[in-house]
Amino acid sequence: MTDIALPNKRPGGRSAQVQALVRTALEELVAEQGRERVTVPAVAERAGVSASSIYRRWGDLQGLLAETATHRLDPNRPLPNTGTLRADLEAWARELIEHLARPCNTSLLKAAAALANDGADTDCLRNRRREALTLVEQARARGEPAPEPQQVIDHLIAPIVFRLVFGGDGVQPELASRLVDELFAICPDR
Amino acid sequence: MTDIALPNKRPGGRSAQVQALVRTALEELVAEQGRERVTVPAVAERAGVSASSIYRRWGDLQGLLAETATHRLDPNRPLPNTGTLRADLEAWARELIEHLARPCNTSLLKAAAALANDGADTDCLRNRRREALTLVEQARARGEPAPEPQQVIDHLIAPIVFRLVFGGDGVQPELASRLVDELFAICPDR
Repeated sequence: MTDIALPNKRPGGRSAQVQALVRTALEELVAEQGRERVTVPAVAERAGVSASSIYRRWGDLQGLLAETATHRLDPNRPLPNTGTLRADLEAWARELIEHLARPCNTSLLKAAAALANDGADTDCLRNRRREALTLVEQARARGEPAPEPQQVIDHLIAPIVFRLVFGGDGVQPELASRLVDELFAICPDR
Repeated sequence: MTDIALPNKRPGGRSAQVQALVRTALEELVAEQGRERVTVPAVAERAGVSASSIYRRWGDLQGLLAETATHRLDPNRPLPNTGTLRADLEAWARELIEHLARPCNTSLLKAAAALANDGADTDCLRNRRREALTLVEQARARGEPAPEPQQVIDHLIAPIVFRLVFGGDGVQPELASRLVDELFAICPDR
């Protein structure tokens, strides 16, 4: 347990409050000092919690980095439901770009890549795959033609993440629109 | 300089020989012990070179990991030239999968992701982009319709690398064929 007095404005109980403080401290330190220089004791000090409470929950710094990278993309957030799959996918991809292109999150995404385990999908991929399935099923229920969820991952999510991790140019939200057009070319109306 | 007696069978002079010994030692240690447990002194000992010669050339362990991940994809190797872009791209993508899907190289690829610098393309992306351009230009010179090189990166290379880094399922060489089909759907004959 931590021995700090927590502000009682945050929703979600004591544990959620501690998590929010730790993630905010991590994001601030990564932004200020870069990913390479951040340590668990420094995060603990900034957050006002004990280092042991961080080790207990996240295992180590790498676990904390990886979890924080995608945490703000709450898997339970409402997904776009505009009435057409094309607009849904574009809004969803723009949200992803806007989130991950923040320097701190790009940095965390790279850390998450390094930690990805063999033999299991990462949380990031699992959550995006579930969201792609939801959007595709919504469209099919309306009678719209739709690509396979795996095609959405391969041709919309993969290029965004690949460019963020391996590219030097940054990724603009407008990329979402072009990639969705290209995805729909693969999946013509049938 | 190193103080070892090098076998004189390897081509490329003394420096190339040292590099080959170090890379082989690294690959063996990653395969035996996992990426997390490898250290520069252990690589140096296995390779029979001094640790300082590794630090001098690669900076640190991370630099060595990142460079070794893609080193065997020699940027000067001959590229496929079968007479059709479709077959060229498929052969090129299969080669990439066969190389990067080796557990040691997947591990090194993840390390390279973590180290990718903001503001500059990684070597891996730069080399693949140049190769994509070569294959596209070859096709155009023959009068074949061809996608843009960036589309080759987004829809053929990105899904392969994304699945390798973030997915748990492994990537089979047969994926190359499906992705090339999908790429050509984006770029209809025009």
